[in-house]
Amino acid sequence: MQSIFKKNLEKLSAYQPGPSTDEIKKMYGLEKVVKLDSNENVYGASPNVQKAIIEDALFPELYPDCRNSDLRDELSKRLCVHSDRFLFGAGLDEIIVLISRAFLDASSSIVMAWPTFYEYYCHAQIEGAATKKIPCTPDGKHDLQAMLRAIDGTTKVVWICNPNNPTGTYLTKDELDAFIEAVPKNVLIVIDEAYIDFVTAKDFPNGLNYLNAFENVLVLRTFSKAYGLASFRIGYAIGSLRIIDEINKVRPPFNNPRLSQVAALAALRDDAFKKDCINKNRKVLAETAIFLRKKGIQFFDSQANFIYIKTDHPEQVALYCRKHGFLINSFQDGVRVTIGKSEDMKRFLPILEKTLLDRVTESSI
Amino acid sequence: MQSIFKKNLEKLSAYQPGPSTDEIKKMYGLEKVVKLDSNENVYGASPNVQKAIIEDALFPELYPDCRNSDLRDELSKRLCVHSDRFLFGAGLDEIIVLISRAFLDASSSIVMAWPTFYEYYCHAQIEGAATKKIPCTPDGKHDLQAMLRAIDGTTKVVWICNPNNPTGTYLTKDELDAFIEAVPKNVLIVIDEAYIDFVTAKDFPNGLNYLNAFENVLVLRTFSKAYGLASFRIGYAIGSLRIIDEINKVRPPFNNPRLSQVAALAALRDDAFKKDCINKNRKVLAETAIFLRKKGIQFFDSQANFIYIKTDHPEQVALYCRKHGFLINSFQDGVRVTIGKSEDMKRFLPILEKTLLDRVTESSI
Repeated sequence: MQSIFKKNLEKLSAYQPGPSTDEIKKMYGLEKVVKLDSNENVYGASPNVQKAIIEDALFPELYPDCRNSDLRDELSKRLCVHSDRFLFGAGLDEIIVLISRAFLDASSSIVMAWPTFYEYYCHAQIEGAATKKIPCTPDGKHDLQAMLRAIDGTTKVVWICNPNNPTGTYLTKDELDAFIEAVPKNVLIVIDEAYIDFVTAKDFPNGLNYLNAFENVLVLRTFSKAYGLASFRIGYAIGSLRIIDEINKVRPPFNNPRLSQVAALAALRDDAFKKDCINKNRKVLAETAIFLRKKGIQFFDSQANFIYIKTDHPEQVALYCRKHGFLINSFQDGVRVTIGKSEDMKRFLPILEKTLLDRVTESSI
Repeated sequence: MQSIFKKNLEKLSAYQPGPSTDEIKKMYGLEKVVKLDSNENVYGASPNVQKAIIEDALFPELYPDCRNSDLRDELSKRLCVHSDRFLFGAGLDEIIVLISRAFLDASSSIVMAWPTFYEYYCHAQIEGAATKKIPCTPDGKHDLQAMLRAIDGTTKVVWICNPNNPTGTYLTKDELDAFIEAVPKNVLIVIDEAYIDFVTAKDFPNGLNYLNAFENVLVLRTFSKAYGLASFRIGYAIGSLRIIDEINKVRPPFNNPRLSQVAALAALRDDAFKKDCINKNRKVLAETAIFLRKKGIQFFDSQANFIYIKTDHPEQVALYCRKHGFLINSFQDGVRVTIGKSEDMKRFLPILEKTLLDRVTESSI
């Protein structure tokens, strides 16, 4: 049955989930496992979300509103962007699928940083598009000059993750201004701002400010991070009508459950909760940076709710932390750690220090 | 900016939602609008669904279980199919996207009936695949002989909708047995059983019975119809491990919100509610058929929760019904009507009769 399968999927494999927190508890006899591996909001979500869900009329049997109208209108008002310029998806995961499906095929290519969010690469591969992964600069930033040089006649999409996941670094307004100006107008520039709510840097560029001057810019935002709604799967794109209309051609019309729409609207309206989470994150992020600096541990300055720590034995570090009840992510030359609650980080950092600096690994315990 | 767009999307347009029921109420000064246009469960969903949602621990900030484990295990037990043979999506809409994306490209083709569920066609178009639409027989059934003849070396997927949407007709076990036997083993046969719960025909084939003998068969089921959970977007595929693994390569891992998983599990466990809905549907479907037959109105015998009624002026019929508070769907040579509640159908059928037989249209009122 060989020929039933598509050639460009041959090299790909399906997402393999790691063990669940319950499984890890059993594996290591732990009472508590702290998730610092998915950049979820460690403070939860606004209590208004649960309230809105309980009070919702539900209409379980009806297809959900395919326009996500209430959430769309509220976002439109808050962001001062025309409501037709939004497109909603089941988290940014689906938005990335939709963009890839609408713009890429075997004759095209994408340009992206490396490391950055893996899904850009994955869905280009599925479409059979070539992927040009441009290594980040030594300070963990997108190498915009090299990315510009990589753009050619086949390039359909350039992915910018700002702040970048997993490095936590950011591109300044001046840097991004010059880049967007230089990219050919028939190349779509996607600015993924999943973590923008956590940013403090004064020279950070708000992607929305490019929309009026550049029809080829698309900005991505999500409710999965600062709003604490990863469970509900709501992300969105904002762009020119031409681009949004094109992506809508490949969007399954009823792609956000009603309760996800309800949850996102309730979360959006609770400004105080989000602000509080962001403030807590900043405080613990600063404490974490002080600790790491004091210990001489190399890391990138982060504008997000996670931090990238350099190491030459990332997998062993992650395994050691896991055995001690902390889940983190390993990459080629470092680990990415979600900034947890203050009390969790106080327990976690000495464990991290031990495996990072003393090279204590799981098997040597 | 012409060249930014993909050529095979040029002919496609985005889904355009019709006016909402509230808008229709305003347009025509109606107090009530009855939705008979989307084959939703007119009896709602099990009350256990709301209860399960209210009682759920929620964990809004965590990514949902990417395996849909609880629902998977319960379905596995009930259907006696190994749990690894399931794949879940945001309704069958997403499952159809995933299949199209995993198997189709510009060098391939699909074979499908016409009319049947539009999404098979739409997503083949997006992949640039050729689509061979084989007209249904005069009695509204898939023309399996013609479909077999249409299969060639480019054919990757054959879509079978059983019972067929929008005709409501079905293929018998003998017919489907012979077809599946005859289809080359390197062609994927997808049997979409979205409406199987409503079936009464004794010679209706359960697609699951083909799975062990035919690695190239995939069966689709959904919670959007008999379970009354269209709002939550849960559909699934069951197939061989090879096929399921391949489709999983293109599946975004967290594609079902936690509450959708919770809702589906609660609905699945309420056998009594589903049975009651199915019985009510059968009764009203039979009453509807008696009415239509008595009036000499042409229709197809249906095994689903809708009925296809022949007419040479389908759009005018649908508009007239809408003006009188009933939403139905028009096709090339007929209208599809969801079987509503008994009291609604008693009001609806005389209206339908008037526009069908007396040719009273909206503008002639």
